Amino acid sequence: MKSFMDKDFLLDSECSKKLYFDFAKKMPICDYHCHLSPKEIYENNEPSDISQLWLSGDHYKWRAMRSAGIEEKYCTGDATAKEKFCAFARALQYCVGNPLYHWAHLELQRYFNIDTPLNEKTAEDIFKKANEAIKNGDFRPRTLIEKSNVKYVCTTDDPIDTLEYHKLLAKENLPFKVLPSFRPDKALNLNLEGFPEYIKALEKAADIKIKSVNDIVTALCKRADYFNSVGCRISDQAFDYVPFETADEEELDAIFNKALKGETLEQLEIDKYRCRVMLALGKKYSELGWAMEIHIGAMRNNNAQAFSSLGADTGFDSVGDCEIAQPLSRFLDRLCFGGHLPKTILFNLNDKDNTVLATMLGNFQSAEAESKIQFGPAWWFLDTMDGMTAQMKALANLGVLGKFIGMETDSRSFTSYARHEYFRRIMCRLIGRWIEDGWYAYDEEIVKEIIEGICYNNAIKYFNFE
Amino acid sequence: MKSFMDKDFLLDSECSKKLYFDFAKKMPICDYHCHLSPKEIYENNEPSDISQLWLSGDHYKWRAMRSAGIEEKYCTGDATAKEKFCAFARALQYCVGNPLYHWAHLELQRYFNIDTPLNEKTAEDIFKKANEAIKNGDFRPRTLIEKSNVKYVCTTDDPIDTLEYHKLLAKENLPFKVLPSFRPDKALNLNLEGFPEYIKALEKAADIKIKSVNDIVTALCKRADYFNSVGCRISDQAFDYVPFETADEEELDAIFNKALKGETLEQLEIDKYRCRVMLALGKKYSELGWAMEIHIGAMRNNNAQAFSSLGADTGFDSVGDCEIAQPLSRFLDRLCFGGHLPKTILFNLNDKDNTVLATMLGNFQSAEAESKIQFGPAWWFLDTMDGMTAQMKALANLGVLGKFIGMETDSRSFTSYARHEYFRRIMCRLIGRWIEDGWYAYDEEIVKEIIEGICYNNAIKYFNFE
Amino acid sequence: MKSFMDKDFLLDSECSKKLYFDFAKKMPICDYHCHLSPKEIYENNEPSDISQLWLSGDHYKWRAMRSAGIEEKYCTGDATAKEKFCAFARALQYCVGNPLYHWAHLELQRYFNIDTPLNEKTAEDIFKKANEAIKNGDFRPRTLIEKSNVKYVCTTDDPIDTLEYHKLLAKENLPFKVLPSFRPDKALNLNLEGFPEYIKALEKAADIKIKSVNDIVTALCKRADYFNSVGCRISDQAFDYVPFETADEEELDAIFNKALKGETLEQLEIDKYRCRVMLALGKKYSELGWAMEIHIGAMRNNNAQAFSSLGADTGFDSVGDCEIAQPLSRFLDRLCFGGHLPKTILFNLNDKDNTVLATMLGNFQSAEAESKIQFGPAWWFLDTMDGMTAQMKALANLGVLGKFIGMETDSRSFTSYARHEYFRRIMCRLIGRWIEDGWYAYDEEIVKEIIEGICYNNAIKYFNFE
Repeated sequence: MKSFMDKDFLLDSECSKKLYFDFAKKMPICDYHCHLSPKEIYENNEPSDISQLWLSGDHYKWRAMRSAGIEEKYCTGDATAKEKFCAFARALQYCVGNPLYHWAHLELQRYFNIDTPLNEKTAEDIFKKANEAIKNGDFRPRTLIEKSNVKYVCTTDDPIDTLEYHKLLAKENLPFKVLPSFRPDKALNLNLEGFPEYIKALEKAADIKIKSVNDIVTALCKRADYFNSVGCRISDQAFDYVPFETADEEELDAIFNKALKGETLEQLEIDKYRCRVMLALGKKYSELGWAMEIHIGAMRNNNAQAFSSLGADTGFDSVGDCEIAQPLSRFLDRLCFGGHLPKTILFNLNDKDNTVLATMLGNFQSAEAESKIQFGPAWWFLDTMDGMTAQMKALANLGVLGKFIGMETDSRSFTSYARHEYFRRIMCRLIGRWIEDGWYAYDEEIVKEIIEGICYNNAIKYFNFE
Repeated sequence: MKSFMDKDFLLDSECSKKLYFDFAKKMPICDYHCHLSPKEIYENNEPSDISQLWLSGDHYKWRAMRSAGIEEKYCTGDATAKEKFCAFARALQYCVGNPLYHWAHLELQRYFNIDTPLNEKTAEDIFKKANEAIKNGDFRPRTLIEKSNVKYVCTTDDPIDTLEYHKLLAKENLPFKVLPSFRPDKALNLNLEGFPEYIKALEKAADIKIKSVNDIVTALCKRADYFNSVGCRISDQAFDYVPFETADEEELDAIFNKALKGETLEQLEIDKYRCRVMLALGKKYSELGWAMEIHIGAMRNNNAQAFSSLGADTGFDSVGDCEIAQPLSRFLDRLCFGGHLPKTILFNLNDKDNTVLATMLGNFQSAEAESKIQFGPAWWFLDTMDGMTAQMKALANLGVLGKFIGMETDSRSFTSYARHEYFRRIMCRLIGRWIEDGWYAYDEEIVKEIIEGICYNNAIKYFNFE
Repeated sequence: MKSFMDKDFLLDSECSKKLYFDFAKKMPICDYHCHLSPKEIYENNEPSDISQLWLSGDHYKWRAMRSAGIEEKYCTGDATAKEKFCAFARALQYCVGNPLYHWAHLELQRYFNIDTPLNEKTAEDIFKKANEAIKNGDFRPRTLIEKSNVKYVCTTDDPIDTLEYHKLLAKENLPFKVLPSFRPDKALNLNLEGFPEYIKALEKAADIKIKSVNDIVTALCKRADYFNSVGCRISDQAFDYVPFETADEEELDAIFNKALKGETLEQLEIDKYRCRVMLALGKKYSELGWAMEIHIGAMRNNNAQAFSSLGADTGFDSVGDCEIAQPLSRFLDRLCFGGHLPKTILFNLNDKDNTVLATMLGNFQSAEAESKIQFGPAWWFLDTMDGMTAQMKALANLGVLGKFIGMETDSRSFTSYARHEYFRRIMCRLIGRWIEDGWYAYDEEIVKEIIEGICYNNAIKYFNFE
């Protein structure tokens, strides 16, 4: 029996160890998509305790706790920090095979220097030790980012955001950059409550009267220019499926006006509107040299009761199973045909779509960038050893793994950079095993370039950072 | 080369062996879903020979034989017992990698004490030896159940069933319980032949005039109360996909009346009816504290010729590929919002849906039960080493594997309890490997609780048995 | 670290090595589906250099190059042979885990006697050596086919083809047969440009006036008879999904006439036409004793710009994700019910459909042939180690692997027979591992029959060759 999560964790061949320790481990991190708060980074406050750090906003942990039969008061409720931590530990011990189990222990080891396995028997003691570490050490956001060797933090921001904290952070002399990303979901979700209010806010932010879909596009493009001036190089949008339905301006404006009046829309109407706006945004991103991230397949807020009491992003989302291939192909083709297809990163949340996406890439590659169309790393529910391995195998089989831009955390917590280590160990395990078995020729120069590329260099080059 | 299917079969690490032999092997069986006949258990007749035991009703075996090019007369026809057995043996030798191959040999080893591999060369000899074992031993249903250490047998019963054999069996002093399960498929399949006749039979069984959909619900609820009084704690229903389409009572009754007249129904009409009845039944199950099993994704009776000559459940079903996520989510949410969501076990027949179901669970968990919403074990066509491993990995990655209620046979044969051994070996192989590799901390107390839980204890607690 | 792609490549157990070297390696090849040109085989010209052999028509390689950021001029453009080869080598070194990497090195080893790994550093030298080998050896098509131990080459031919080269080749005294396959895609794709012209050509080829759908069927059947007389035993068709929509002759003829006038058709109209023609063709194939191949799931020509400049089959296709189960079942059932279901080979391009197809087979098996309905080997984008392994596991779990007709190349190049070696190594790796682990009983006679069957004998028997 190997020691529990020791230094060789996941590295099961000599070659995997070499790849990890000689090449991967030392590389900096480019976290090109996350949900960290620039305000929190700017304010740089110490967490009060490990429960605040781990349990105050992490819907992954809440879901696991609820699934283990733990009451809501220990998740989002008014239990004490210690009670919550112990309840989490009790749930975690049943999470055999869950990435949470690995993430939690990697974080304990790397940030708290605690090697003891966490379970209900050790919970109190670890709670005490971790809080001592927080008290005696420096667990402020900037320190955690720097200590994790992060060079780029790309947050997720609404087009109406002032980006004031990004601008304030840019003035500080920091060893890392915090850049905004442009996420226009609220402008695309004309079917959700609050859309009319959002349009008003967008009018204000863009200083433009919005009376038509063309006006929305103009406003968003103006905001994109602003984002670009603050260092934004990436956009991001989420879809059940990427729609491709065309309509003329008159019909689009009619749809828009229905939405402003709060009338119920047909799915086809929603799709027409989204398609129109996204085609315009894609063109804009292309002009700005941005990369366009598309996250496909989440089915959100499934539990109406929980949504009404706790709101969004509290652990009640799951994976959809729409057909996605045909309209996505049409959408990308339309942009490509006009010469307006930006660098694009396609993410899927349902692993049944791995083959669809990994082959979709190949339809639209060009010499503008190495793997201009990227297959995004396994994300959210797929951010597991199996999910990451399947994503990398799909990309290896169907594309060019050596040009992969690699991992991002998609995270809301400052200790979750351990997920980059997790990814790198899994990546070195996979490629190392192939080399060990004689399936790929070992040439130190080439292999080093590939591993360092996937860890960091490919992303830096892809996004034109540095 | 390891010995063929010896005592360490499938257990490829020291830790896996320990988990299996120290914890899993001795646990009793709670077979919470099967298709055994309570009448056969009550009557307790000796089988005439191994062909009767193995080949008289097993559509898995018939399919394999047909796929190997064997004529129908050796499957369901009038060949002799010996001819059928030899034909099966000839087919089986080509079934490399098929679970049938493992099930057959496990059954030969455990129930007949025969270690010889079965193939066309050994078939006659094994036929003779197995029949001698039957002649000289006790292969009656009750003995096989007891010998297999089964404590609970949950059969599958129609709401109009009198449950007379369950009641008779309850009066016997047996070391196991035979409990009914409530399967209202015939009341839901208003599109199939025989629906009007079924409604008449339901009227009689429930002693209620059925003139509306409300009456059907009332009748079914009355039968559920009756089932509950005979010890039923589980319901079961099968769907291509779980529908969510709402309609008012007037429309529903119009649909119902069309069905009674044998008129053809639109899919939307069928869905509206099913949704209405299932929402009412879900509420009833919740009130009774039952668990609701939903089996999703079978496409039945694909071969019209075979159906007309052999009937249903004769080996002509396969796996569908509908989209299932959205309506299933809406259906469960509607019940949950009203406070009426029962304990629910979701089974999928298409492994493309593993991620959808394993994440759907998390939307509706609560402290009412540990993993109140369960991901049912790999079933029917997925009841293979690959299928079971994939189901457990999906649950491990996306839920809490330690609270899994584990295996049921879904079987029609009294020797198929060997499938529980198969499952347990695969489960110990998987978890043992994780521990062996240092991915999960070995704490004897916790690991023992998890393994024994998945084998038996979790199910007993979940169903409130004992 | 094992040597790079040495003689034991992919064979990771003693049993796997035995299966490969004692049974699989020496078996001839029956390449029952490929896109080789009978004209090229007849003309039997020497390639000018390795770039012509490898890069003049291989969209797999072009895709990889484009994905690595290489400019089009090195793919399909006017770069020199050497420049193209070096550009390919540069791309290939990043293709870690891609089957192209293995195919290229197997071809270098087997046909050129070059063991050096190909990368940008070795490219020039290998270009030189390979071209010397071509200059000094015999790389003409017939020699490559014979040297590869191929006994049957089944090409892919349009019903209007004269098959003149097949007839000429039949007169030569060759150690292999080159047989046509009947691929009526152009007659089925009434929605594509050129359909009216195609119908005219079909009229001429069949010497029949085509004024109705019935006439088309008559013409195609007449051509099938002609193909049969030239040795054809296989048909092939490609679908997004196999449609099942019925219509009367009047409606069908109206659809056909719309198509002839170049009017836009609804998907439902296209499906009705295709269903009608395919049901008639299925019956014809059954009468001729042919096997019907159905390739499901390609989404073609996604990049309109590339299509307009480069045409079809240039690397801009990807994988679709339609629902396929229900209409496919209805289609096969309709043929089966009438007693007209031919031997059928179902291929899927989306691995999410593995379980659907592998269980669909079982609905329609019969004693007419061993595994009359076959699960086609992993194809195109799935023709990878993972794809082949998944296909064989699905078939093993859900059908009878021992009766599998095995691999075909689907290829356009005369050195791609190395893919049969690749397949055989993977197949022996899989089955050998099962035997090594004690999961399948080793009986030399039976195992030899199975391995040799999957390599060659099963196909020969299935197609009634020899």
